[in-house]
Amino acid sequence: MTEQATPRRLAHPGPDEILLEGVLHALSDPVRLAIVRRLAAAPDALACSAFDLPVTKSTTTHHFRVLRESGVVRQTYRGTAKLNALRADELERLFPGLLDRVLHAAAAEEARRG
Amino acid sequence: MTEQATPRRLAHPGPDEILLEGVLHALSDPVRLAIVRRLAAAPDALACSAFDLPVTKSTTTHHFRVLRESGVVRQTYRGTAKLNALRADELERLFPGLLDRVLHAAAAEEARRG
Repeated sequence: MTEQATPRRLAHPGPDEILLEGVLHALSDPVRLAIVRRLAAAPDALACSAFDLPVTKSTTTHHFRVLRESGVVRQTYRGTAKLNALRADELERLFPGLLDRVLHAAAAEEARRG
Repeated sequence: MTEQATPRRLAHPGPDEILLEGVLHALSDPVRLAIVRRLAAAPDALACSAFDLPVTKSTTTHHFRVLRESGVVRQTYRGTAKLNALRADELERLFPGLLDRVLHAAAAEEARRG
């Protein structure tokens, strides 16, 4: 079930609404994949402003929205900042091993290409 | 190294040119994912005409081209037909376990959604 948005709560797909094609699409962009890798390595949720990305602010906002709407990332407000956390446990239940393999593949590709 | 196209040979990326983002993008479309699942289950290469897809012929051609250009599928001519085979071994060397996890996720999603 979708969690409806309120002024202080952003809409997120419920686990039953997360689609494989949406998750793969979200992960198929290098900027979004960089965000996901950073979140996977972080012990806590990270504010959007913690990411130094090679794109404009509005493009950054777009990428976080794609990640949220596909179910990859959960965004919550803290004050005026949006905090981002991977929905790793939910994705693992839906698609076992998938996120792990994508993260490994990204690391292997980075090592190969330098 | 790219294998150059000739009138009888289609261009394919070499293993060093296959990018994770391109592979994930190729797999993020439901029609292309259906093609990949069918190829993964087939003992031999399959002609494009063997697929009964809910899209026009030109869209089908587009999807096969995306799969070929991303390095997911190898297309070879036999007479006037194009035969398609997954580049499963090459993908496995580049991104261990990734294709397997995507195929499992697709099967799990199909079972969940009916």
